[in-house]
Amino acid sequence: MDKIFNPKSIAVIGVSKSKDKVGRVIFENLKKTFKGKLYCINPHEKSISGKKCYTSVLNVKEKIDMAVIAIPALKVIDVVKECNKKGIKSVVIITAGFSEIGKNNLELELKDYLDKNNMIAVGPNCLGILDNYSNVDTLFAYPDKLKRPKKGNLSFISQSGAAGCAILDMLSNNNTGISKFVSYGNAVNVDESDYLKYLSKDKNTKVICVYLEAVEDGKKFMKISRKVSKKKPIVLLKGGKFKESEEATLSHTGSMAGSSEVYSAAFKQSGIIEVNSIREMFDTAKLLEKKKKPKGNKIQIITNGGGYGIITTDNVLKNNLKLSNIRNKEKIKKKLLPIAVVKNPIDLTGSANDEHYKIAIENSLKDKDVDILVVILLPQLPSISKNIVNIFSNMNKLTKKPFVVIMTGGESNKIYKEKLEEKDIPVYDFPNDAINSIKNLIKYNQ
Amino acid sequence: MDKIFNPKSIAVIGVSKSKDKVGRVIFENLKKTFKGKLYCINPHEKSISGKKCYTSVLNVKEKIDMAVIAIPALKVIDVVKECNKKGIKSVVIITAGFSEIGKNNLELELKDYLDKNNMIAVGPNCLGILDNYSNVDTLFAYPDKLKRPKKGNLSFISQSGAAGCAILDMLSNNNTGISKFVSYGNAVNVDESDYLKYLSKDKNTKVICVYLEAVEDGKKFMKISRKVSKKKPIVLLKGGKFKESEEATLSHTGSMAGSSEVYSAAFKQSGIIEVNSIREMFDTAKLLEKKKKPKGNKIQIITNGGGYGIITTDNVLKNNLKLSNIRNKEKIKKKLLPIAVVKNPIDLTGSANDEHYKIAIENSLKDKDVDILVVILLPQLPSISKNIVNIFSNMNKLTKKPFVVIMTGGESNKIYKEKLEEKDIPVYDFPNDAINSIKNLIKYNQ
Repeated sequence: MDKIFNPKSIAVIGVSKSKDKVGRVIFENLKKTFKGKLYCINPHEKSISGKKCYTSVLNVKEKIDMAVIAIPALKVIDVVKECNKKGIKSVVIITAGFSEIGKNNLELELKDYLDKNNMIAVGPNCLGILDNYSNVDTLFAYPDKLKRPKKGNLSFISQSGAAGCAILDMLSNNNTGISKFVSYGNAVNVDESDYLKYLSKDKNTKVICVYLEAVEDGKKFMKISRKVSKKKPIVLLKGGKFKESEEATLSHTGSMAGSSEVYSAAFKQSGIIEVNSIREMFDTAKLLEKKKKPKGNKIQIITNGGGYGIITTDNVLKNNLKLSNIRNKEKIKKKLLPIAVVKNPIDLTGSANDEHYKIAIENSLKDKDVDILVVILLPQLPSISKNIVNIFSNMNKLTKKPFVVIMTGGESNKIYKEKLEEKDIPVYDFPNDAINSIKNLIKYNQ
Repeated sequence: MDKIFNPKSIAVIGVSKSKDKVGRVIFENLKKTFKGKLYCINPHEKSISGKKCYTSVLNVKEKIDMAVIAIPALKVIDVVKECNKKGIKSVVIITAGFSEIGKNNLELELKDYLDKNNMIAVGPNCLGILDNYSNVDTLFAYPDKLKRPKKGNLSFISQSGAAGCAILDMLSNNNTGISKFVSYGNAVNVDESDYLKYLSKDKNTKVICVYLEAVEDGKKFMKISRKVSKKKPIVLLKGGKFKESEEATLSHTGSMAGSSEVYSAAFKQSGIIEVNSIREMFDTAKLLEKKKKPKGNKIQIITNGGGYGIITTDNVLKNNLKLSNIRNKEKIKKKLLPIAVVKNPIDLTGSANDEHYKIAIENSLKDKDVDILVVILLPQLPSISKNIVNIFSNMNKLTKKPFVVIMTGGESNKIYKEKLEEKDIPVYDFPNDAINSIKNLIKYNQ
C-alpha cells in the first residue's frame, strides 16, 4: 500500500494530447507537484507536454513503483497485465465502466487477475488519491477549479469521488489541512478497511473521516475499525440510509447498502463516531484533531452577546450535556462587575473588552467544575481588539481542557477565525456546529 | 412608526468627541448614508466632525422627525421630555442600564412618560435599526468591523443586539439582501408584534425573520402574527428553550422566557415557521423569498455526483418528503444514456456537461409528478462550463416550481453561487440545508 501513497516513480497510462482529458489532467498535476520520476504512457504520440511518451510501461527501463490508469474500461486488464510484467504491483484505476454500470464480469476478471498476481488497485471508477506529504495527486481536476487543501492532519476516505472532490474544495476554502484523501470507487481488491488500517499507521493522520455507502465485508470492517478507533478517531457519514436511497446506491457503486440500523449498531460497536451531515463530519474532526480529552461533560459558556449565549445554552441542554456551575463566581464577579452577568453563560455584554475576556476565561479554566470551555466572540463590537487572538491562544496553550470558539460574521470575522485556527483553537460559525462537535468529542472519549 | 424607519430629519443626542463612543459612531455612519437632515446634539462642544453642535433639540429651529439617544441611562428621561417638547414623537434609545440590570422602576417611568405623551421608542438597550431603503442606520459599529448587507427583501427583527449584529455581518458576506433590521432590546413601548405589523405593510419586505427570547403580550403577538403570516412568511428562532437558558434570558433582556412547548404551539397556531438554528432561519427565508408555491411534496433530484444524490435522498426521506416518480423516464433515457442513471436521483455522473443538465432539468420540470426540483451541481468537474448558470436561470424563469441548487466547494464555487443567486435561484452549501428549507417551504404553504 505504501507504493500507492509514497512511490518514488509513477507512470500515467493514457495521457492524452487534449488538455481536458482525464489522463492528461492527472499528468499535468503530477508534473507540477510530484518530486519523484514521472513517465508518460501513450502509444500514439512521441511527446506530450514536453515529456517523452512511451508506448507501454514495458518500454521504460527504470523501475516504476506505481501506475495511474486512465484508459477505456475494456483495455484496462491488458494494461494491468503489462504493469505486472514490469513489476508494478500497485495501480490506481481511474477508469469507470465496471460493476457500477452492470459490467460485473469485467470487474470480477480484473479482481481475479489482481488477486492472483499479488497486485493491489485503488478503484476502478474513482478519483484516486491526494497525499499532501508525498505530493501524489491523481485528482482529474485542475487546481483553478478544485483547489487542494493545505497540509494537515485529517485524512478522508470517500466511496464517492465527486462528493470527495467538492468537499476537498470546501476544505481548502476553510483553511482545513489534510494528510491523505482517497476516493476508492468500486474497491475491486482494496477496500475501506484496508485504507483504515493503513491510515491508522500514518504518522501524519490524527483523525480519519469516512464517507461510505456500503461495506462488502462487514466482519473485516468491524474487526479493523474496532482496533483503529482505539488509536485514532474515525468520524463517519453513511449514505443510503433508506430503502429508496439504497436503490440509488446500487447504481452508484454497484454494491448494496443494507439496513441503516444494522450499520449504525455496527459503527457504534466498532467505536466509530457516526455523524449526520458533511458539515458535522469536518466540524467534529477538527475538534478531535486537538487531542484534548474532556474529563466530563460540563460546559462553561462565556459570551459578549447575550442572545448567542442563550442559543448556545439551548444547544447544550438539547444534547444532554451539562452546564458547569463554577465555584469561584464571587472572585469573577469582583473583577467583572458591573459590566458582566456572572452565571452560566458568563455574559460579558457588548461592552466587553479583551481584558474582560481574559479574566473570565482564566477563572473558568481554573475551576474544577468546568470540563470544556465555549467562548463566544462577536468581534464586530467596537471594544474588541485584534490582540484577543493572542489572549485566547495563550489560555488555550496553558490548559488541557477543550477550548472552542463560536464566531459568526463576514470578512473581518474570517481573519480572526484563520488566526485562531492557526493557533490550534477550533472555531465554529454557529452554536449548534460547536455543540454537536463537543457532543461527538465526549462520545469518543467515553 | 414610519417616522422611525423613514424620517426626513434625525437628531443624534449624545455625539461624543471620541471616535469610538456609541453616539459618535452612529453619527458618523448616518453622516455617510442618510440623505435627510442630520443634527448633532452635545451640550459641551461647539462642533464635532465638521458639524455644528446643538446643546439640546430645543435649540434646533427646523422640524425634527426622529431622535437617536445615546447618553447615560439616568439622563434619558429628561432628554425624552425635551424631544416631546420639540414635537419629536419617535425615538431610538440605544442606552443600556434599564430592566436588564434590574432597574425596573427607571424603565417603568420611561414607559409611562412615552405612553402618556403618545410617543414611541425603539429600545432601550438595543442597536436600533438599519433600513436599506431609507438609509437610516443606528448600528454602533463602523462598516469595516460590521459590513452592512446589500438592499434586498428580507427583514429581520432581533431581540438580541449582538446576535443581530453578527448575523448582519454574515449576511453581507453571503451576499444576502436585507430590507430592514430592528434590534429592539427591552421593547419599552413598541414590541415584536408592532414591528411585525409594520413590516407586513412594507413593500420591500417579502419575508420576516425573527429572533426572540420572550414575548410579554402573548395574545397580541398571536393575533397579529396570525394575520401577518397569511400575507408574508414569518421565520422564527426562539432562544431560551430550557429552564436553565430561561435564567440567562432573564438577565439578558429583563423578561421571562416561559415554557418552550407553549411557545412552539402558539407559533404553529399563528402560522409561524419555527426553526432550530440561525442557519436554518436564513436558508429558509431565501427560499420563501422566491414566492414559488409547490403543489405537493414530491422532489426530483438531479446530480453529477452519485454520493451527493444519495445524501440528498437520505435527507428527503428523513424529513418525510417524497421522491417523485417521473413519468417520462424513457424519453430522458433516450437522450441521456449511456452516461446517466435515470431514476430518482437522476445521476448524470461525473461526465455530465451543461447540455445533459439542460435535458434532465427540462424534462423533470415538464413532468407532472415533480413538485420541486433539487439540482446538485459540483462544478469542480471538468465538463461543466460557466454557461450552466444561464441554463439554470432560463429554466427557473420558465417554471413555477421551486428550483433549488446544492453546491459544495471553495472559491470558484462562490462565483457560481453568487451568479445563480443573482438570478433568483437559492443555492445551498449542503444537502441538509436545502432539504430543511424545502420542508419549511412546504409547511408554510400547507
